[in-house]
Amino acid sequence: MLTSLAKTVGRIPASWGRHAWSIGSEDPRRAVHALKAGTALTLVSLLYILEPFFQGIGKNAMWAVMTVVVVLEFTAGATICKGLNRGLGTVLAGCLALLIELVAAGTGKVLRAFIVGASVFIVGFAATYTRFFPAIKKSYDYGVLIFLLTFNLITVSSYRQQDVVSLTRDRLSTIAIGCAICLFMSLLVLPNWSGEDLHSSTVGKFQGLATSIEACVNEYFRDQDEGDDVLGKQEARASIQIGYRAVLDSKSSDETLAHYASWEPRHSMHCYSYPWQKYVKLGSVLRHFAYTVAALHGCLESEVQTPPSVRSLFRGPCTRVAREVAKVLQELAASIKHHRRCAPDVLSDHLHEALQDLNSAIRSQPRLFLGSKHACAANKRVLLMELNSGSGKLSASRAALRSFKTDATALSETRNARSDQPPPPSDRSERSGGLLRPTLSKIAITSLEFSEALPFAAFASLLVEMVVRLELVIEEVKNLERVANFRELATGHNHLIVDLGSKEKTRNSNAAALHPVSAAAE
Amino acid sequence: MLTSLAKTVGRIPASWGRHAWSIGSEDPRRAVHALKAGTALTLVSLLYILEPFFQGIGKNAMWAVMTVVVVLEFTAGATICKGLNRGLGTVLAGCLALLIELVAAGTGKVLRAFIVGASVFIVGFAATYTRFFPAIKKSYDYGVLIFLLTFNLITVSSYRQQDVVSLTRDRLSTIAIGCAICLFMSLLVLPNWSGEDLHSSTVGKFQGLATSIEACVNEYFRDQDEGDDVLGKQEARASIQIGYRAVLDSKSSDETLAHYASWEPRHSMHCYSYPWQKYVKLGSVLRHFAYTVAALHGCLESEVQTPPSVRSLFRGPCTRVAREVAKVLQELAASIKHHRRCAPDVLSDHLHEALQDLNSAIRSQPRLFLGSKHACAANKRVLLMELNSGSGKLSASRAALRSFKTDATALSETRNARSDQPPPPSDRSERSGGLLRPTLSKIAITSLEFSEALPFAAFASLLVEMVVRLELVIEEVKNLERVANFRELATGHNHLIVDLGSKEKTRNSNAAALHPVSAAAE
Repeated sequence: MLTSLAKTVGRIPASWGRHAWSIGSEDPRRAVHALKAGTALTLVSLLYILEPFFQGIGKNAMWAVMTVVVVLEFTAGATICKGLNRGLGTVLAGCLALLIELVAAGTGKVLRAFIVGASVFIVGFAATYTRFFPAIKKSYDYGVLIFLLTFNLITVSSYRQQDVVSLTRDRLSTIAIGCAICLFMSLLVLPNWSGEDLHSSTVGKFQGLATSIEACVNEYFRDQDEGDDVLGKQEARASIQIGYRAVLDSKSSDETLAHYASWEPRHSMHCYSYPWQKYVKLGSVLRHFAYTVAALHGCLESEVQTPPSVRSLFRGPCTRVAREVAKVLQELAASIKHHRRCAPDVLSDHLHEALQDLNSAIRSQPRLFLGSKHACAANKRVLLMELNSGSGKLSASRAALRSFKTDATALSETRNARSDQPPPPSDRSERSGGLLRPTLSKIAITSLEFSEALPFAAFASLLVEMVVRLELVIEEVKNLERVANFRELATGHNHLIVDLGSKEKTRNSNAAALHPVSAAAE
Repeated sequence: MLTSLAKTVGRIPASWGRHAWSIGSEDPRRAVHALKAGTALTLVSLLYILEPFFQGIGKNAMWAVMTVVVVLEFTAGATICKGLNRGLGTVLAGCLALLIELVAAGTGKVLRAFIVGASVFIVGFAATYTRFFPAIKKSYDYGVLIFLLTFNLITVSSYRQQDVVSLTRDRLSTIAIGCAICLFMSLLVLPNWSGEDLHSSTVGKFQGLATSIEACVNEYFRDQDEGDDVLGKQEARASIQIGYRAVLDSKSSDETLAHYASWEPRHSMHCYSYPWQKYVKLGSVLRHFAYTVAALHGCLESEVQTPPSVRSLFRGPCTRVAREVAKVLQELAASIKHHRRCAPDVLSDHLHEALQDLNSAIRSQPRLFLGSKHACAANKRVLLMELNSGSGKLSASRAALRSFKTDATALSETRNARSDQPPPPSDRSERSGGLLRPTLSKIAITSLEFSEALPFAAFASLLVEMVVRLELVIEEVKNLERVANFRELATGHNHLIVDLGSKEKTRNSNAAALHPVSAAAE
């Protein structure tokens, strides 16, 4: 027993090691960043350890060590933002503290204590209150914190230490040294750019949406027969979620990345200021687009389902529309990825044709959009009348009738099959308490009495809506391209580029995430 | 000119003052928190200023000041979390530093420098790498930072200062004093609880969704005639967004609040651990519900619109379903707000009836779901045949025909009106470049050829889907109620409570947000 315990305990470090390794292999930049942090800390420690440095700086070298620990962040933009905040906060706090020192100079001990206490209270109140201002909170929260820290440090120290000016100077210079080391490490040694991250995450969003849409429509029209393996089905459905969920949840990370990216100098070289806020805007338009994808996915998981026989009638055109939309998204992803303008005719005629096909497919099956019972009655009446009138159109209408009848049979078959078995088993049905069962089934039955084509109408309508919103996305992409000065499309071999791009995309999307430096060197 | 400049400059402080005042009046807890921060800072400064304290603690009192600045957060949970992180990080770092000191003790100067440098590098690398672990990042990021800070401080200092043990002890005790002052201020003086915030934001989400749904459906069925004022329309549409957008964007704030709330002791008194994670779960189910609301709102803004004459046919049942859904949401909000279980029959028969009304309304107008041209042809054929057959049903079918004709006329009128004027003016049409116009109109025309009832079918289907998802929400609320031990519904006067709750809700929702303490005292 003891040996098994020892073995179990022995396995813990191994599993931790594997976990640590997986985190590093997911994104090797993490390990590189950790190495950079270790190096920066060792460098700054030398200030204290090496004799010549220590004689110049003295014990205050500790401030430099603290600065490095706090300021060095994963991306260059975040480091610059924090470094500048720390510098600015320290300078302003130093100035204010010296001013108060000037006022308090030469006063008695009690009055001095009062002045120090009152200024600490007032500045503490004001600075804390300022942190609630949205503009300050967004960009300068850390600066205000450091301002408060430095101010208190200097003001309170000044009560017992007379040489406040040298204290301020030491604090400023050591913090400057710390910031300099951080900036060197962050900007010049294998830098990670927030801008690159934002760029590649935007490209990834387009690709994710394209995958989601295609998977969702394919799943919707998948034959029930092949879909017997519940596991494979659940996997396919889970993969649909990943694409659009990433877009829907991207708001805060987009904003943070764009905020840090706006501090990064790199892109300012080839245009005055790179429009990172346009990426945020594009992200919000993409979220708007993704709501439709989420609703489309909702159709897939809805309790009220159009029977497969009906669905299969529209399989061709719907799949085609989805494929064309996905293709447009992939082209947009490729053009953003390579910083070039997308083709003016990116919203191709193929999509237009696919939409028209869908339109005519829906028009060719008008009876489906009748409520089924009602439809039967109406149908019988037409049949009777046609028999009475005995017109030449009999054979044609009979053919139409037969096709409808097949559908009606399919409908009733599905209904019977459904009433035999309880509502489809999902993970929620196990969780729910007994109270809810009757209500759920009540609703389910009510819903089933709706025209079965209604959910399909919603599906088709969402597809059309998606195309309309796709235009908004394209508009926003063109906006971005214009403002960011993407290079013009080389005419002639544009399709070649697109094809290459789409082929290489899976390989590159990983590579871009992992080696931002090489991607930046492109 | 100088006087006008002086006036302008003179107005700046006034406008800043107004801005500051508005931020405080939005949530007076902010001003209270700022006052608390000022008081805490003054208190901790006394450690340095007052003679007896200074003799005991000395210059290290500065660590206490820094701790207060950094640890005191807006809510109690956040303060506890940061304080514990800081304490734990310091203790662990102190232990490790002492261990290394033990190893390095008695070695020569060069070897000692090497040991210090190597340990700084290794610990720096390991700690920075650890911060990428999701579990660590979520709960202990600040603790690891403080660990690194303290470790470096002590280890590097130990190179020149022999009395490392007393340095460690001083740092620990001063940080403990700082944390104690923070905890006192945060937990005992007018505390803000993250849990209360999470609770009231959850209630607010339900209310926002209810408002959104009702406003959205009302807007959908609003007569075009009254809707001539574009400004009022835009305002109404903007108000729809607020409700569901707040739900869609709530993910990260929910998680943060739940994380901090889990540190708060308050609710642990009446049950072992309050299920804050259930609120996060409920938030995610609500987001799932809100996707449908977003899609419903999309129907309102879609380029393809069902003509008002057709819509008005379904106005009654649709509005009723929406009202019932909103009512259920309001009841759920009220029951969560007052920590009591909701009625078992919260999904009322009214909703059931409203759904059935909608169902029969859709069934009574089957022809609407035909494509319009096709419908006309089919209609004419029926008419001819009925004339031929000369059956007794003529008059009834004529009445049906007339009503359809009216709709058809309305359709063509709308289409003409649309083709006269360019696509509806929205803010994007001004923004868009010239390139896009032709494509947009191409799509718009294609879309218009779809059956006009298709968008309405989507709308109706989304309403039904919303009811289905409402059940999932109710299930999750009941889960929460069970796990959180909400008190049982007092039978008999439950409806009285609900009514009172819904009447007072607008008044209370503000009051709850502003005075969490009084809300907590309920």
